[in-house]
Amino acid sequence: MLPLSSQKLIYNPIINNLFSRSKSPHSKEIFQKIRKITGINSRNKEVYLLAVTHSSSTSSKYSNERLEYLGDAVLDTVIAEYLFKKYPFKDEGFLTNIRSRIVNRESLNTIARKLGLNEIIQHNARTDISKKKSSIHGNALEALIGAVYIDKGFKGSKKFIYTKIITPHLDIASIVNTPNNFKSILIEWSQKENKKIAFIEEKTEEDNRLFSITVMVEGKATGTASAKNKKKAQQLASEKACKALKVSLN
Amino acid sequence: MLPLSSQKLIYNPIINNLFSRSKSPHSKEIFQKIRKITGINSRNKEVYLLAVTHSSSTSSKYSNERLEYLGDAVLDTVIAEYLFKKYPFKDEGFLTNIRSRIVNRESLNTIARKLGLNEIIQHNARTDISKKKSSIHGNALEALIGAVYIDKGFKGSKKFIYTKIITPHLDIASIVNTPNNFKSILIEWSQKENKKIAFIEEKTEEDNRLFSITVMVEGKATGTASAKNKKKAQQLASEKACKALKVSLN
Repeated sequence: MLPLSSQKLIYNPIINNLFSRSKSPHSKEIFQKIRKITGINSRNKEVYLLAVTHSSSTSSKYSNERLEYLGDAVLDTVIAEYLFKKYPFKDEGFLTNIRSRIVNRESLNTIARKLGLNEIIQHNARTDISKKKSSIHGNALEALIGAVYIDKGFKGSKKFIYTKIITPHLDIASIVNTPNNFKSILIEWSQKENKKIAFIEEKTEEDNRLFSITVMVEGKATGTASAKNKKKAQQLASEKACKALKVSLN
Repeated sequence: MLPLSSQKLIYNPIINNLFSRSKSPHSKEIFQKIRKITGINSRNKEVYLLAVTHSSSTSSKYSNERLEYLGDAVLDTVIAEYLFKKYPFKDEGFLTNIRSRIVNRESLNTIARKLGLNEIIQHNARTDISKKKSSIHGNALEALIGAVYIDKGFKGSKKFIYTKIITPHLDIASIVNTPNNFKSILIEWSQKENKKIAFIEEKTEEDNRLFSITVMVEGKATGTASAKNKKKAQQLASEKACKALKVSLN
């Protein structure tokens, strides 16, 4: 294993490779916008530019995917601690559930667009990133958290997440008070207990506008429900499976 | 949302509740042993004692489960950064895969026992924690990381993980060079792509010592294999499914 000190040196080649690119007027403009989003005054342009570089971009050999992997972990830890402290008497099932509802793809995509990240993501012109549900936005937000972590360490990224994400964009109390997402409860349970689950989808014969979903747990049908949209059917089937398995939140 | 400063105050009630307990001679002895494991000289006995308190313990109203939730996230982040820096030219698929192989339950259980955590976990006498595969050990290790995080912050927990876990107990090069775990690759892929997968198990009719495993992806059989033990059959079936789906590592 490499000692801590030499590790600091070896992660830079990719970032250094972007250095020439970072001097173009276009890059300067993008970097100004990133600065406004983060509120961080940094000279470390390269890592921030990398954070908004989608893998489809032709202007760079490198993309934000590695930073996304890093930022995802940092965000999980910061939210974990936030909830740990905010809810001192709630058990870990509650904390895990609320966290997964905070950092879900949809919520991150929305926040990324509120921050204006969608407008500065560098991508191939043929790649459509304008769709409202595009995960490219949420992924770039995670990558930006990764960039802040590289530039300013854990404390800096925690401050960024608190001041630019949690405080302005997350209504934790309302998330807590919203009815539970039984599908995510079930998935968490299956991961913790190492059970295999699957959602089997069928159009019902009687009415093909109805979706029928069966939750399979270790190959055994554990809950079935029908509804006019797939998500609703998944929720209802998951709720039944949770009841059958006596899996509950808190 | 609570401001950062007041959040620091409110997570203490549970820990303070343990304070009286921490003065018993037995607790002092346990705490001495924890100190030896962590190498950390702290006055914050309570949080460390909580880290080794299993939920079956009758001597405390509280258990290490919340700390485990916190430590799990911290460990993920520290390992994420370690690999990010160690492998600057590997993509996030590689990094995610290696991390999941480092922090898997079995590996954490083994490290926990090497550290001697199994000898100091407080539990109900009727709860058998001696089994080699008991996750109680790995969970306590994660809780201990959570305790170090509460006591010494992110930097302190990073140091603990580097000096007491990675350096003495993890041979990363050998993990990287070990043939891939196709089941975990498949599970990671399914989570990333939001596909439902299930492992259906059958004893084969011809030979009931053989396990037959079918990987179902979105309800469709995607790979089947038989072997004399379940794990092997799962690996072979997953390998077939990975090939069929063109899912690969790197």
